[in-house]
Amino acid sequence: MTLALPTASARLLGLLARDLPPDRLATDPRTLADRAVDRSGLRPDGLPLAVVRAGSTQDVTVTLRHAHALRVPVVPRGAGTGLSGGATAGEGALVLDLSGMDRIQELSAEDQLAVVEPGVVTADLDRAAAGYGLRYAPDPASAAWSTIGGNIATNAGGLRCAKYGVTRDSVLGLEAVLADGTVVRTGRRTVKGVTGYDLTALLTGSEGTLAVITSATLRLRPVPVATATVAAYFADFETAAEASQAIGRAGVVPALAELVDGPVLAAVDPALRTRGAALLIVQSDGAGAAVEAAAVAEAVARAATSVETTQDPAEAEALLAARRLALPALERLGRPLIEDIAVPRSRLAEAAREIRAISARHDVPVFTIAHAADGNLHPIVVVDPSLDRLPDAAWEAAGEIFALALRLGGTLTGEHGVGVLKRQWVAEELGPAAHALQRRLKEAFDPRGILNPGKSL
Amino acid sequence: MTLALPTASARLLGLLARDLPPDRLATDPRTLADRAVDRSGLRPDGLPLAVVRAGSTQDVTVTLRHAHALRVPVVPRGAGTGLSGGATAGEGALVLDLSGMDRIQELSAEDQLAVVEPGVVTADLDRAAAGYGLRYAPDPASAAWSTIGGNIATNAGGLRCAKYGVTRDSVLGLEAVLADGTVVRTGRRTVKGVTGYDLTALLTGSEGTLAVITSATLRLRPVPVATATVAAYFADFETAAEASQAIGRAGVVPALAELVDGPVLAAVDPALRTRGAALLIVQSDGAGAAVEAAAVAEAVARAATSVETTQDPAEAEALLAARRLALPALERLGRPLIEDIAVPRSRLAEAAREIRAISARHDVPVFTIAHAADGNLHPIVVVDPSLDRLPDAAWEAAGEIFALALRLGGTLTGEHGVGVLKRQWVAEELGPAAHALQRRLKEAFDPRGILNPGKSL
Repeated sequence: MTLALPTASARLLGLLARDLPPDRLATDPRTLADRAVDRSGLRPDGLPLAVVRAGSTQDVTVTLRHAHALRVPVVPRGAGTGLSGGATAGEGALVLDLSGMDRIQELSAEDQLAVVEPGVVTADLDRAAAGYGLRYAPDPASAAWSTIGGNIATNAGGLRCAKYGVTRDSVLGLEAVLADGTVVRTGRRTVKGVTGYDLTALLTGSEGTLAVITSATLRLRPVPVATATVAAYFADFETAAEASQAIGRAGVVPALAELVDGPVLAAVDPALRTRGAALLIVQSDGAGAAVEAAAVAEAVARAATSVETTQDPAEAEALLAARRLALPALERLGRPLIEDIAVPRSRLAEAAREIRAISARHDVPVFTIAHAADGNLHPIVVVDPSLDRLPDAAWEAAGEIFALALRLGGTLTGEHGVGVLKRQWVAEELGPAAHALQRRLKEAFDPRGILNPGKSL
Repeated sequence: MTLALPTASARLLGLLARDLPPDRLATDPRTLADRAVDRSGLRPDGLPLAVVRAGSTQDVTVTLRHAHALRVPVVPRGAGTGLSGGATAGEGALVLDLSGMDRIQELSAEDQLAVVEPGVVTADLDRAAAGYGLRYAPDPASAAWSTIGGNIATNAGGLRCAKYGVTRDSVLGLEAVLADGTVVRTGRRTVKGVTGYDLTALLTGSEGTLAVITSATLRLRPVPVATATVAAYFADFETAAEASQAIGRAGVVPALAELVDGPVLAAVDPALRTRGAALLIVQSDGAGAAVEAAAVAEAVARAATSVETTQDPAEAEALLAARRLALPALERLGRPLIEDIAVPRSRLAEAAREIRAISARHDVPVFTIAHAADGNLHPIVVVDPSLDRLPDAAWEAAGEIFALALRLGGTLTGEHGVGVLKRQWVAEELGPAAHALQRRLKEAFDPRGILNPGKSL
């Protein structure tokens, strides 16, 4: 008879079973397989060790304390809607699922803020705020399913960030658990505050590699009193991109400014494609919405083939449908692989032109939508879903698009995060000195490197 | 004959004299005394070792490389307009004066950004941007003298941050020199970007303790097409503070919302004081300015003793004069010691009431102005300028005001920074875990602790 020494993994499972409330720990293969992936399409090697379904900050501290002592890697996750592989978990990792921590702990109309657990679905918070005439401004396309914790981990964007900023601009403070189980509180309940370093901003966008967020104090904003929407069609995407520059020149800061190219229009509805080869949708909001929309319509009219304007919310939603339905439409064609580069606004048309050239060179069809006001482009390659891995040509085209973004003074990722997919290009964007500095910061937070290893940096 | 071994200080001076361009190094007592202080009124012990007047990033790297090797403390400074002692330099420190690096390196109207050296005066940048229909939104009261580098080091606020955010919200990227002379670049030229940790936000507000900023890429915004201004007088400050809550309830995000109490009004102009015991000035901007101002006027009318509204810029400036002249007026009475607490907006009236009680209890007159939309109060104690140190009663009142801010869920400092003045309360605000984490971050940037020691943390 041989007596097997317990491995770190087995010891961790024993300690978690002992110290967590019942039903928090799952090891059945279906749960493991389900919680090992996100929406990147990446399939990690092997299955994770177990899934902890955290129900409280205490569950998170217990989990991390033991994982830290035993040096077991931990992958925090929310709804798993990430597009970069940031929440994928391979062999031997412990998945820390925060989607069950989904309470809105406080909603203060007077202070225009909410305190929420990380598993609150973004759209649910927005809905709750609406009851007080307020809203949560960041609106990633995944808002109906994605969670606040994941939004913070990736510093998610969305349509409205043209005017209201990214997730970081709505995070006032955090409660987070460090790798060793220590609970820290960052930021505050006030809009302003400069005591100490800005740990709130540092954790926002850190993709689960620095700490696990267990509560967030979020800024809410009044629902605008009015909106007005302009939809303009153009003969080609570059002309539409050029025209979007006129919004800024007209002195307007739009609530959103979305570009949709011809192939996407055709995928959404062939009837749309007959109206033009590219669509620009601009929305203004607030008391001056109609005046601003009129200025936008006038500014883009000369270059457009058609322009329409509406102040009716239902008509505005109909105009926006071409943008909102883009991803579902592409999903009907195959598995969309969504890139997320951002370039200085003035280089938007040039980026679009180059992307078309890259697409032609590699014979890889690229569909493009863009947040025009942010210079944030989503070139989308649609691949055969039955393929186990990305075709070489698609991978090469993706690499050239990343290189293009850096060459134009932009970034690999505007709002989706680095995850696993974009890691090989990170050092080039950051440069060696900043990259080394970021690694030292990671060590200051997580000296044993247990938090989401292999992601982000 | 004894041969004195050169001390670190003497060796440093020798190396700097050798490696810096001529005229960069100053050691004359007048320059030393002048560059040893800021506007906090604090007088450090002894005189600094020398002043390096940096003219380029190269000068900064040379200076830091040698100082790091010899472990000599370095105090970076801009115009020295700080109010918290963050730029004070005591015996043996090397002052690194960046005010001479004052070039606007680029101003792009298309990308609505500027790239500037740290010594550019804030108002000069705003003026240069105006030539393109743009502006630099942050407007600290010191904008006519303070530099961008100092604004970033303290994450300065101002009046307009009610709508446009603090300095951090306008910083897209930085070039900075680490303690050992390594140059890092953070952030980017795009509005969005999530590659790597947000070092730009981490450096913003770090009060010169993490790195020395040598260039900043700053966001510019269109000059609003219109403004409208409401001035309302009230029977007392608490009523005015309560009334300011009605702005948010009306769904308006004002461009600025300033409160001025009776003692300040009296100091500015006794005629103003006859109109009421507190003044609330609210400005809206953009295409909907007039509509918003009307909504504000209506929302505050019931509680006010008088309300006036104007869309004329000159009249608006006249209304704002009571706020803009507050500090110069108090300076005529003595040396103003300006506190900078922020509380959740809903606690503004309570904070005002408590401050009055503290003032009465210690028999220390307190003058108060506030950025109402941010919950940011500036209680000001005016002391006899001939005194060498703060009277005990003033110090005790200040301590109670800090404690009050924390008790109300607020912060020690909304926009001025911790510097030296507020250091003793920092650990209490941050809590032991976050404080320890911040110290580890400091070590990751500056392992020898040469950058602005004794400040901020």
